[in-house]
Amino acid sequence: MTVQSAWTEKVELKREQLKDKIADEWKLDNETIRRLKDDKKNLIKNIDDLCSSIENQITHSTIIKLREKLNAKQLTCYKITSAFCHRAALIHQVVNCLSEIMFLEALKLADYYDKHRPATLPPLYGIPISLKDQCNVEGVDTSLGYLSRTFKPKTKDEESLIVSYLRDLGAIIFVKTTVPSSMMATDTESNTFGYTYNSINLNFSSGGSSGGEGSLIGAHGSLLGLGTDIGGSIRIPSSYQGLFGLKPTFGRVPYLKVDNSFEGRETIPSVIGPLAKDLSDLRYFMSCIINVCKPWMRDVKCLPYYFDSTANELHSDYVVGIWYSDDVIGLPPSDIRALKLCEDLINKTEGMKAVKWEPPSKLSIELFDIANEADVADSGNEIRDEFELSGEPLLDILKPMVLDDGRPPYTVNQWWDLTKRVYNAQQSMREYYLSLPELERPDVVICPTTLMPFRPGDMLKTTLRHILLFNVLNFSSLSVPVGTVDCQMDGLMDVSSALNAEDKMIRTYWNDLIESGDIEGFPVGLQIVSPIFDDSEICKFASWLFTKI
Amino acid sequence: MTVQSAWTEKVELKREQLKDKIADEWKLDNETIRRLKDDKKNLIKNIDDLCSSIENQITHSTIIKLREKLNAKQLTCYKITSAFCHRAALIHQVVNCLSEIMFLEALKLADYYDKHRPATLPPLYGIPISLKDQCNVEGVDTSLGYLSRTFKPKTKDEESLIVSYLRDLGAIIFVKTTVPSSMMATDTESNTFGYTYNSINLNFSSGGSSGGEGSLIGAHGSLLGLGTDIGGSIRIPSSYQGLFGLKPTFGRVPYLKVDNSFEGRETIPSVIGPLAKDLSDLRYFMSCIINVCKPWMRDVKCLPYYFDSTANELHSDYVVGIWYSDDVIGLPPSDIRALKLCEDLINKTEGMKAVKWEPPSKLSIELFDIANEADVADSGNEIRDEFELSGEPLLDILKPMVLDDGRPPYTVNQWWDLTKRVYNAQQSMREYYLSLPELERPDVVICPTTLMPFRPGDMLKTTLRHILLFNVLNFSSLSVPVGTVDCQMDGLMDVSSALNAEDKMIRTYWNDLIESGDIEGFPVGLQIVSPIFDDSEICKFASWLFTKI
Repeated sequence: MTVQSAWTEKVELKREQLKDKIADEWKLDNETIRRLKDDKKNLIKNIDDLCSSIENQITHSTIIKLREKLNAKQLTCYKITSAFCHRAALIHQVVNCLSEIMFLEALKLADYYDKHRPATLPPLYGIPISLKDQCNVEGVDTSLGYLSRTFKPKTKDEESLIVSYLRDLGAIIFVKTTVPSSMMATDTESNTFGYTYNSINLNFSSGGSSGGEGSLIGAHGSLLGLGTDIGGSIRIPSSYQGLFGLKPTFGRVPYLKVDNSFEGRETIPSVIGPLAKDLSDLRYFMSCIINVCKPWMRDVKCLPYYFDSTANELHSDYVVGIWYSDDVIGLPPSDIRALKLCEDLINKTEGMKAVKWEPPSKLSIELFDIANEADVADSGNEIRDEFELSGEPLLDILKPMVLDDGRPPYTVNQWWDLTKRVYNAQQSMREYYLSLPELERPDVVICPTTLMPFRPGDMLKTTLRHILLFNVLNFSSLSVPVGTVDCQMDGLMDVSSALNAEDKMIRTYWNDLIESGDIEGFPVGLQIVSPIFDDSEICKFASWLFTKI
Repeated sequence: MTVQSAWTEKVELKREQLKDKIADEWKLDNETIRRLKDDKKNLIKNIDDLCSSIENQITHSTIIKLREKLNAKQLTCYKITSAFCHRAALIHQVVNCLSEIMFLEALKLADYYDKHRPATLPPLYGIPISLKDQCNVEGVDTSLGYLSRTFKPKTKDEESLIVSYLRDLGAIIFVKTTVPSSMMATDTESNTFGYTYNSINLNFSSGGSSGGEGSLIGAHGSLLGLGTDIGGSIRIPSSYQGLFGLKPTFGRVPYLKVDNSFEGRETIPSVIGPLAKDLSDLRYFMSCIINVCKPWMRDVKCLPYYFDSTANELHSDYVVGIWYSDDVIGLPPSDIRALKLCEDLINKTEGMKAVKWEPPSKLSIELFDIANEADVADSGNEIRDEFELSGEPLLDILKPMVLDDGRPPYTVNQWWDLTKRVYNAQQSMREYYLSLPELERPDVVICPTTLMPFRPGDMLKTTLRHILLFNVLNFSSLSVPVGTVDCQMDGLMDVSSALNAEDKMIRTYWNDLIESGDIEGFPVGLQIVSPIFDDSEICKFASWLFTKI
């Protein structure tokens, strides 16, 4: 058997096993799959048509509402779970978002829960939750998108702490979702599972690295799932599928026993957090995981703070910073429109004020550079080694991560120097914040996220300039959907006034998307960030904002 | 000028400048210096004899009491400051504990404070505070014990955040204290400043790396000073001079703009904390720096927690773990006696219980190994480079830190692996804690610190096995004095039953110290640590303990 045939055979086997976990009656014929794939912008409606009315009611609901119905015995855990399993199976057959399917186990547990219903239902009783393929679940692989890690089912002992908390809370784990190999890409593709499409608009990428989560939740295949974010991996798929996605500060949601790339790289750490259709669900989830589970008792990296999910009222003299630009990349008209909408709403509200958030461009450039340097500090050793283990070929989306110029990995002294730069940059941003008059220091800041979607193969035609800096800063950031692109209203960008080559590329790509019409109706995502690491505050502000928009 | 003469001349100049900052009337003649140096165990009394009665009353007081007298206008800031300057000058001439002298500036400020006394005195108004030679103060060097860093006075902008907080609180900065070059040793020696002796017993080392602080405060030359601890540097000098020394968890006391070795080495970070004669003073200081200054607003690494310094009462069903041994090193009789004293006190008290704290030996060995590997991860590059800058010769105490076997520094991948081991070890200790029945999980743990003092040149004849692990674990630890060595009562150790070569060395050294009688009356230090990172709790427990001892 050649190396080539060895790895492709392993891939075939994994894919077959995955497919076999979908019940025959849920399988779509090739004709339907083709039709749904071709109807790029209507997946939700098309899937609705394939589901029963009660299933659609369930999957278009929220955790909080489902919980009310469960409490009132108007629904069973089994009905809820079954609706999501069915819908996830259908979505997957079109966008390819699942890496592990646990329908049988989920339905069995749901049935058990219905038969052994306690007097008081645990906080997530009977609620299906999806997991990025980094979380360890007994009996299934955690691949990280690497073929080398398939066919190595995890044991009970290896289960992620967050998974055991979910079980304690009564949640039902039913699927794991696709990631790009290594997770160090903002597109979702692997040799093992293939390519994950955007479920809102199949012309585009689902984003990454929590692309499977984004795509699944985007089409109502799950109400809430867990992603991770080391460079936008929660926020990008959230933005691309019109979701709420929270990148908490480090140490809020427990990462214990969640598999990862670059384990031990604590400078600019990956964090774990929820993606959800509904903001109240997201806040409810955070309060369950933090306030109920108290993860600091089990995970030494977790901070012993509660999450303030109760109050919705904002304090008086509320200040919101608006960050329009870093003088490096011009914003597309859709982002400017969304930011202005927020700014106007805030300024119209008594007791609130919008101010410009304008940290020095030099600082945002430094933050961006640091993140990029950190990502290739090991010259790609770890990723290269993982690919060599299985013999699968390196993916194009990972080539920026794997240096081929022979540069050796950083020495520990170089790494410490980079870590110092991180601290200095964090501190410089704090100095900027403190340099503002006290009454103009923002409680939260609103800013762009992804600027625009990208087509498969075009990952490098977009920018992470509004994303990576918040990983380096360890700012909590909530990705929120603020309207959609309107080709007519938003229009073309002026390429001739581009500030630099990168800006020119972005403007040109935007114009291409506008001219093709493909981007019409695509969600516009913004970020709400906290300049002083307050995860609760950004959620509270978002709740206020979304009563107005 | 040869390299040799260049560095020695620079040293001479630095030493002369330091000496010149002591007023002539405070200078001791050579005869007195010799007499005080020879009377090894009576420095405090000998210095008392050289000071006025009112000076002795002041320097033998506490911050809290001095504050009362200042409030009642029974004392002036000038009188207090002058008393400490005088005493520090005298102590320094015997034990060599100062690296920077700021008497003139301190007295001028004290005078100003007396003349511009506010209605309500700030929390540390007029209280002299000493600083380890890592804190940046405008106008003076921060040497870290390196000749290369002398004659480079810091600017106002470079001042450490903690120094500016001390100024805000009204404290008076009057001296900086000696450290071993690089601070990566537990003895205090540098080519520039020479050797710092123990002020309780001049046969011995002051410990390190905050040796100057320990020695100064030990002989009442300061009530409270700041040290740092990456491997015992607060706790060892505290233990060796019978002080209270707090190594907080990371992120409690702000490290911003405090110069350091290995900046950017955030795995097993150095932390900054107080050494004090009096426990209530130490707690008061912590509450000022944390609760009043709110360092998290300025230093992004600081955690937004308050410090609970008010309550003294312990909660009911209080559990104290006692850690007698790690099966690697046998404890000297003095430590066993001190631990038993605490255990008996606890068991005699209603609502309290002492339990054995016995984490697996394998784990404490791993923690010790990790710390040692981290210390030479860069093969000594940084220290070697600093010595080469000035041409001064490498010190014997630093030779274990500077590899001469040609091993290259760790790659970033090796460093990440070590960081992973740190997390795993921290987590294993947490698992041990959680494995105990809930009613037997200790609120605090009491354990040994240094075991015994060492003579100049004997640094490597002692062990850090009960010290380094708490740096790796990020446990908060308070070093406390529990009695003194009694050669008669404590006696010899059995060398023939030594567990291994290291244990044999320790036992042999202990017997040598007992047989010589030098160790008679030497302070015994224990640590009170928090298995769940609770800095306030260990201080609260210590306050209870010291009402009983």
